[in-house]
Amino acid sequence: MTIDPLFVLEMIGTAVFAISGALAASRAKMDIFGFSVLALMPAVGGGTMRDIVLGRFPVFWIENNSYVAVAVLAAVGVYFFADRPGFRLTLLTWMDAAGLALFAVLGTEIALNAGVTVFIAIMMGVTTAVIGGMIRDIICNEIPLVLSGEVYATAAFVASIAYILALRAGTPDTVSLGIGVIAGFAVRAVGIIFHLKFPRVGHDNQA
Amino acid sequence: MTIDPLFVLEMIGTAVFAISGALAASRAKMDIFGFSVLALMPAVGGGTMRDIVLGRFPVFWIENNSYVAVAVLAAVGVYFFADRPGFRLTLLTWMDAAGLALFAVLGTEIALNAGVTVFIAIMMGVTTAVIGGMIRDIICNEIPLVLSGEVYATAAFVASIAYILALRAGTPDTVSLGIGVIAGFAVRAVGIIFHLKFPRVGHDNQA
Amino acid sequence: MTIDPLFVLEMIGTAVFAISGALAASRAKMDIFGFSVLALMPAVGGGTMRDIVLGRFPVFWIENNSYVAVAVLAAVGVYFFADRPGFRLTLLTWMDAAGLALFAVLGTEIALNAGVTVFIAIMMGVTTAVIGGMIRDIICNEIPLVLSGEVYATAAFVASIAYILALRAGTPDTVSLGIGVIAGFAVRAVGIIFHLKFPRVGHDNQA
Repeated sequence: MTIDPLFVLEMIGTAVFAISGALAASRAKMDIFGFSVLALMPAVGGGTMRDIVLGRFPVFWIENNSYVAVAVLAAVGVYFFADRPGFRLTLLTWMDAAGLALFAVLGTEIALNAGVTVFIAIMMGVTTAVIGGMIRDIICNEIPLVLSGEVYATAAFVASIAYILALRAGTPDTVSLGIGVIAGFAVRAVGIIFHLKFPRVGHDNQA
Repeated sequence: MTIDPLFVLEMIGTAVFAISGALAASRAKMDIFGFSVLALMPAVGGGTMRDIVLGRFPVFWIENNSYVAVAVLAAVGVYFFADRPGFRLTLLTWMDAAGLALFAVLGTEIALNAGVTVFIAIMMGVTTAVIGGMIRDIICNEIPLVLSGEVYATAAFVASIAYILALRAGTPDTVSLGIGVIAGFAVRAVGIIFHLKFPRVGHDNQA
Repeated sequence: MTIDPLFVLEMIGTAVFAISGALAASRAKMDIFGFSVLALMPAVGGGTMRDIVLGRFPVFWIENNSYVAVAVLAAVGVYFFADRPGFRLTLLTWMDAAGLALFAVLGTEIALNAGVTVFIAIMMGVTTAVIGGMIRDIICNEIPLVLSGEVYATAAFVASIAYILALRAGTPDTVSLGIGVIAGFAVRAVGIIFHLKFPRVGHDNQA
């Protein structure tokens, strides 16, 4: 039996994004079914949108129970073991960072395999990586992390570009995937640790 | 002419969820077209997502005007007759409860007929029942009922499970549908009346 | 080389809705990638939903880079040149009005060409025109313009009806498109300028 490294990355991405959703559910004091629903949003939401716009039906989690099962298991695990206020927001931020980098690279790869242009593939990698977490945050009435002012969509962009550049340089797909994930996670990590902000426009005077 | 009991349940579910949307529009003081748009969100939103992820195109309300017509009629009816503040939130809550139980069971049945696993069918019944109302509440900038802290997603889960267990026990499909709806509505009703809460994690100290 | 007037209208609609998204990003003080993501939501969101429910796959922007390119260019332009607080909200409102009228008419035409009934075509024109901007506003945690209390969904409705009536009267398609856009924009403009409000129900006493 061989293990598909792509599938392993997908399961890790699903689990970490599901944990981020469950931690958000914990902060909103939901019950165990609420944890499961909120874990599923970031875990399968972005990929569902990716499959839909590409016309890949039924979407990926319908014919393989693993995705939903991993997300629900992650939710149940957080429900019973992770009730540690003060620790939750930090863990949510880092799980989200890992999921962001993983899904940006995986989204780009799947879009490329579906035959779209490089331009659209990058845009799909970034958007689908961002969308799941955005839905999670909107449901919880929190300011989405993508609006945090820190480097966020940028990290997904770097992950997607790094993966494509590595591929173009002749690097094997599996290694390229890893390079993309590490590059994206590194950028987001720098943003979290140093509260690094890109030049932004706008003033405090909101109008 | 025979009447399809499944279609009758669908129309009832569409009407009660549309009424819940129109009542939310009334609370937000929208005009008659706003009422219609907001009534359509819960009335056809969940089923649209269900059809999309299963790859059933065009989605159910494109080829049969009844769904949109019933939702718009319900919106117009609420617009002219239901302006009774103090009464609206209570009615919205109960219409939403009925729609939740109906759509959880119908979503499970349609998913099973599309050939997905029981695990995915339950998950789709619950998620699609919850999604329409969640969109309605998010648009109105209200805390979604699913986050109310009361038994909510749980009721959809019970409706879906009860329907499947009744089917497995050899009960005819129509009767099983009724059993599922009654079970789910009863659980949600107990939650509403007694403000019953499942064990939840989390503290007041939000972090 | 001939220029398709329909395509020109689509590009204008895409650009103005993208500008509205970028202006919302400016108000939320996002970075340049945030501008791009938020510009894409209204620019391609409504049409994506339209294509999905009609079963047209892959959706329109996958095989033609123009839509995403125009939206990103508009976002970059706003990022570098439009940082003028006090001016932004006014411009956002008018760009949104133009996009609303354009997309209501285009959505109606595409739905009619897909063979749906007139009733569903109008409903799809209105809903898809409204949805993109609604997503943009929800992400920014602003009250959606559709809930502003001013004539909004109504303008999309008028645009869609005017286009269909013009077609029925034997007017060529291109001219009918123009009539619909002008009618819808005029209604929305009157709503913005005079703060015109349709009869609405509801009291200050929110319950």
